[in-house]
Parts: sequence; structure tokens; C-alpha cells
Amino acid sequence: MATVRLLSDDELGDEARAVFAEIRAARKTDHVNDFWRALAHDPVSLRRTWESLKQVMGPGTIDPLVKEMLYVAVSIANGCDYCIHTHTASARAKGMSEAQFLELVAIVGMASETNRMVTAFGIDVDERWRDPA
Amino acid sequence: MATVRLLSDDELGDEARAVFAEIRAARKTDHVNDFWRALAHDPVSLRRTWESLKQVMGPGTIDPLVKEMLYVAVSIANGCDYCIHTHTASARAKGMSEAQFLELVAIVGMASETNRMVTAFGIDVDERWRDPA
Amino acid sequence: MATVRLLSDDELGDEARAVFAEIRAARKTDHVNDFWRALAHDPVSLRRTWESLKQVMGPGTIDPLVKEMLYVAVSIANGCDYCIHTHTASARAKGMSEAQFLELVAIVGMASETNRMVTAFGIDVDERWRDPA
Amino acid sequence: MATVRLLSDDELGDEARAVFAEIRAARKTDHVNDFWRALAHDPVSLRRTWESLKQVMGPGTIDPLVKEMLYVAVSIANGCDYCIHTHTASARAKGMSEAQFLELVAIVGMASETNRMVTAFGIDVDERWRDPA
Amino acid sequence: MATVRLLSDDELGDEARAVFAEIRAARKTDHVNDFWRALAHDPVSLRRTWESLKQVMGPGTIDPLVKEMLYVAVSIANGCDYCIHTHTASARAKGMSEAQFLELVAIVGMASETNRMVTAFGIDVDERWRDPA
Amino acid sequence: MATVRLLSDDELGDEARAVFAEIRAARKTDHVNDFWRALAHDPVSLRRTWESLKQVMGPGTIDPLVKEMLYVAVSIANGCDYCIHTHTASARAKGMSEAQFLELVAIVGMASETNRMVTAFGIDVDERWRDPA
Repeated sequence: MATVRLLSDDELGDEARAVFAEIRAARKTDHVNDFWRALAHDPVSLRRTWESLKQVMGPGTIDPLVKEMLYVAVSIANGCDYCIHTHTASARAKGMSEAQFLELVAIVGMASETNRMVTAFGIDVDERWRDPA
Repeated sequence: MATVRLLSDDELGDEARAVFAEIRAARKTDHVNDFWRALAHDPVSLRRTWESLKQVMGPGTIDPLVKEMLYVAVSIANGCDYCIHTHTASARAKGMSEAQFLELVAIVGMASETNRMVTAFGIDVDERWRDPA
Repeated sequence: MATVRLLSDDELGDEARAVFAEIRAARKTDHVNDFWRALAHDPVSLRRTWESLKQVMGPGTIDPLVKEMLYVAVSIANGCDYCIHTHTASARAKGMSEAQFLELVAIVGMASETNRMVTAFGIDVDERWRDPA
Repeated sequence: MATVRLLSDDELGDEARAVFAEIRAARKTDHVNDFWRALAHDPVSLRRTWESLKQVMGPGTIDPLVKEMLYVAVSIANGCDYCIHTHTASARAKGMSEAQFLELVAIVGMASETNRMVTAFGIDVDERWRDPA
Repeated sequence: MATVRLLSDDELGDEARAVFAEIRAARKTDHVNDFWRALAHDPVSLRRTWESLKQVMGPGTIDPLVKEMLYVAVSIANGCDYCIHTHTASARAKGMSEAQFLELVAIVGMASETNRMVTAFGIDVDERWRDPA
Repeated sequence: MATVRLLSDDELGDEARAVFAEIRAARKTDHVNDFWRALAHDPVSLRRTWESLKQVMGPGTIDPLVKEMLYVAVSIANGCDYCIHTHTASARAKGMSEAQFLELVAIVGMASETNRMVTAFGIDVDERWRDPA
């Protein structure tokens, strides 16, 4: 029930084809997620989004699996079912155990509960937490 | 600008006083966050929330610092300023570096961007990601 | 820190002045909330919003206090601090006790927790709950 | 999987029938969206919502196509799949090109990314942007 | 399209089995919602969530039906389709009439409209509503 | 009440300094918004975000003022007060009239109202709107 048609490989323009090749190489699989097939209509956005994702999710100071788990947690809070499924699959591929996924879900739930309670109480940030690190 | 008055230590009932003592012992500080001072009006909720938080954020299969970072990420996505400040402080106390915090913010931003794009395209979960683990 | 200037009584045009008079009469107070002072720049929206609010929050099959509590709950979930404060005040004026407010906050928190957990699990609506009433 | 049954034309009461006739006339099509068939159970809400929509989306200072694009953008941010589909269809009917839709999606994504980053940093509005226009 | 497999009765461990028995007794039906069948993978969360839910939704100062309606309203605002369906069913079982459900929907819509307008105007809480009760 | 310290011009590293120079040139003002002063701690994110923003908000098929209005609308729906203020200021600088801003607010409100009502009714996308353009 997409709002745009998903492009097959032979409908891609040159730029989109190049990005797809990079995705396949990076992910070590021939499968390209449908998100990219939708975005392929706009090769400039496709290129920018892929480059940004590589940079943000690439090597840094946070462990790759933890990055993927943060992505899943945000996707749950933002209510994106597609993103939850694909990034949960990625996290599992990177070693997330079932126990860890269930623990992640509990944290997202718990944080959402206290987030709303704090919002309801409308309390200001405690004096001592106001200074940046 | 709270919707309820924050209770000082000498306004606490017995049950609330007991929970405050546990919070102080667990957090190894005399300071009790204002969230608890608001919630202290409802000792049953105070007890339940504290017990749940201890369980969810306590020992498990996810590293304590990672748990705290997930909490921060969800609080950003849910837009709870108070929670962002207090849990960022907790994560820093547990060893989160500034580089890690900045990386976390980039992930939350990136996930929110693709979450919305996917929602806009309205694409169904790829066949291959539909099966539970 | 408003994005529009709040209009004082003597800056109102005729239509806005008329709506303000109705608000004062309906609420039995001379005070008109700043929301209306912002909206007064757009008398057509002001009139429409006031009429809609009167209809939706007016006599019906749900008790007036319950309506106000639903309004507060939604405002918490939507994260509108201003709305939480003003509608909590209205609910209190209509008889909401402190115990009821605290119970409402607990429900909003609990619902938000399970909402996120269900979203994380991505489960379809049980067969038996799919049929409209 | 609706929570209320969708009413067919011959189940409508007089008031709902009148609103449906206006919708058909205004939209120049016999098709009435299922949203209205759900709302038809509550003729007062149906009438109010239709009148409000006509006023808000009718002639004003913003171009009709732009209004429709704003509606789509908000529906994406609010995560309403049904609304995204129907208002994207309306925007296309009013002349939105595919390139424009893809650009709109990129803007919604980009805004959501920076919205979250700003929230994470918890920065106050710059002094110079605090004054209403 | 769940992210975890739903457990059947004979796959439950002892703790999960005990919670299921309590759910069946409390709800006076053999049917256990799929949410619990997903959560049963994590018996500790299952137990905690069930206990919390019983406490929050149990006897207090707010009428049981009103509690259920608040739950539905929050689930709509949080965009959890599953929760909307199951809690609407519960509310109907507790006596919510169709007219009341339609009125609830109108309130959630109206509150969401003014929530966003207030947010857009960025107005501070009126001086007089700033003091806690 | 930021979670990171805002960097002054003389605390910037080379890469951040270069981006600030580009921002000043592009915006034709010496003022650099505090968002960039927070993000300057992470020069890689700073560069990526600035480049993305330039591309997404730069010349395309949607009018620059309309792009800015879409940005404002999304920021309202996402509840980012800082973003609402800064992008409203940008939109005004690009020619948005007060009447247009008020109309935009009305659209965001109206869309949010119907978004929630549709979500409450849980209705599937009408058959005829399911096909991508």
C-alpha cells in the first residue's frame, strides 16, 4: 500500500544503480530493502540518505550492535513498523539475543511511561542537572 | 511550573519516606530528583514505579550504560526535556563520553529522518523480515 | 516566547471581541487564556475553534469532568505543557480531586508503556477484536 | 479492521445524507472516503468536521495545493497512514508532481532529524528569535 | 507480522503459565490477548506488566469505565492500533455506548487540534495557572 | 538549559569554523543559531547536517517559502519549540505574511484533529487510494 511504486532493478537510473551496488556490497546480500526501491525515484535523496546512514551507523565510539539497538528503540518510539522490523533484523544479525531484544522493549516501555508522567507533572529540570557536562 | 507541589522530605508519609531512603541508598547520593518529589503524593505509584525502574534498569543481558543510553534516546524521541537531562546525567555518570553522546544524538536524528520517510512512502515490511526470529 | 503577539482587549476587532465576551460569560471569569489572545489575530479560526470546543466539550453522553480528564490525558500524550496546565485547572475546577489527577497520570503512563511494547512486538489485532461493535 | 462499522449510503440519517451530498458536490465525485462513512455515526461531528475542513482548506492566503501538501506533511509526522494516502491523492489531483512529493518527503525527514537533535541538545530559543513578529 | 513468535499455552514456562491463569480468572474468559503471548517470552516483564496493570486499572478514585476510556484516548494519541482495538473492546464490555465512543473520538481530535495550535503559538502558561493546586 | 555547552567562535576547530563561515555566507548574517553552536562539538555531524540541509532546502521543484512552511508545520507536529521559532523567523524573512502563518497553524491543527480521528476509527485506506501514482 505504498504511496510510490517500488522500482525493480531494471528501472533504476545510473545513480540509483550505483547506490544499490554499494548497498549490496556493504550488506553482503543481493536483497535491497523496499525502502531503497521507493527512494530510488529520487536519486539525490537516495545518495544523501545512504551516505548519511553509512556515516552515522559506521565506526565510531559506540559499538555497532548498540547503534542498531538505539535505532530500533527510536523507531518504536516514533511508531515506524517497517523500521522496527528491518532494524530488529539487522540487530539480530549483529548478535542481539532474544533476551536482549525483550530487555530493550522493556526499557522503551518504561522510559515512555516515566516520560509521560514527568510531562504530566510539568516539573522543571532539577537545578543540578541544568549545566552542560 | 509543576502541576503538583514538590514534596520536601518532612512532608513525606511513611511509604514515600521508605522509597526515598532506597533511592538514596541505590544512587549513593542524598539528592532525590524532583520527579520523585512530585510522585510522592501517590505512594502506591511511587513504590511501583521505583520497583519497576529497578527491575528494568537493573542487571540483565544489556550493559548498564547501554540501558541508560537507550533511555535517553527514547526520551528524546518522546520529547521529554526533564528525562533527557536527568538520564543524560546518569549516562555520563556511568561513563558515557561526550563523543558517545554526540553519536547517540546523530543516531536518534537519523532514525527519526528515515522513520518519517518510510512512513511517507507507506511501504509494507519486506516479505523476508516478516517472520519472527 | 510566543511566535505571535498576544492581543490585549483593546486591540481586538469586532468578531474577536464578541468571542471573548462569550468565553467570559461561559467560563464565568474575566480572565481569558492567552491561547485565545494569540488566536484573536485570526477571528475566523477563533470563532470556529470556540464553537467547536463548545460543541465537543458541551452536554453529551460523557460526564463534563470525564471529558476534561480525557482532554488532559491527550494533552499529556501530545506533550502540550500549556494545555496540560490549563485543562488540569479546568478539571480541578470541575471537581477532580488530587487523588484522581494522580491516578490519571498513572493511567497515561501505563498506557504509554504498553502502547510502546505492543508497537515493538508488532502484533496484529487479535481475530476476535477486529469486528466493529 | 475499523473500530466502527462503515455506513453505506442507505444507512445514513438525514443530516449525514445532507453532508454526503455536499462532499460529493464539492469533490465532484460519487466516491465518499471511508473516514466520512465512519464519522457518519455521529452526524453532529460529521457536520462540524466537514464545515471546519471546508473553511480551513478553502480559499485563503495560502495556495490550495500548498495547503494540501502541508496536510500531507503533518499526517506523516503524526503517523496517520490513511491520511497520508488520501491527502497525497488530493495533492496529486491538485497538481503535485512526483518530484514535488519526493521533495516533500525529504523535507519532512530532514525536519524530523533536526527536530530531534535540537530536542536532544535542549537548547533555548536564541535571544533574537524570541520576539513575536 | 510480529517481531517475536506468539507463544501457545503449551510453550509457556511455569511463571508465564501462572500469569496466564490469573489473566483468565480476572477477565473471566479463556482468551488471552496476543500481547501477553508475545510478552510471555520474558516472564519477569510479563509478571511486572500484569501486576502494574492490575494496580493502575484496579479500584481507585476514578470509575473503571472512565479508566478504560482514558486508556483508549491515550492509545489513540500514541497511535497504537492494537491497543485502540483491545481497550475499545474492554470499554464496550464495561458499558461504553457507541455515542460515548464517538464523543471520546471527538474529544481526542479536538484536544489534538488545540494542542498543536498552542504549540505553534509557543505561548507560556498563563501566570494564574502556574501554581500547583 | 542545554545538555551540551554552546561553543563560541574562538572555540571552534578548523572544520567547524569552515562550516560556520559557509552558514554566515549563505544566510547573509553574522549570527549563527545556537543549534550549530551545540552541534559544533561534532564537526562530522555538523558538516553532514549542513550539507543535507542545503541540499534538501535548496533549489528544487517546491518554492523556497513553501519548503520553509513545510519545515515549520513538521516542527509543530514534532513539538520542537526551538525549531518552530527559528523556522518561523526564516519563513517570515522569505515573505510569509501573518495571515499565512495563522492559516498554516489552522491547517496543522485541523490535520492533527482528523489524523487522530482516523486513527481512532482504525479504517483501512480506501481501495481506490491504494495504488501508487
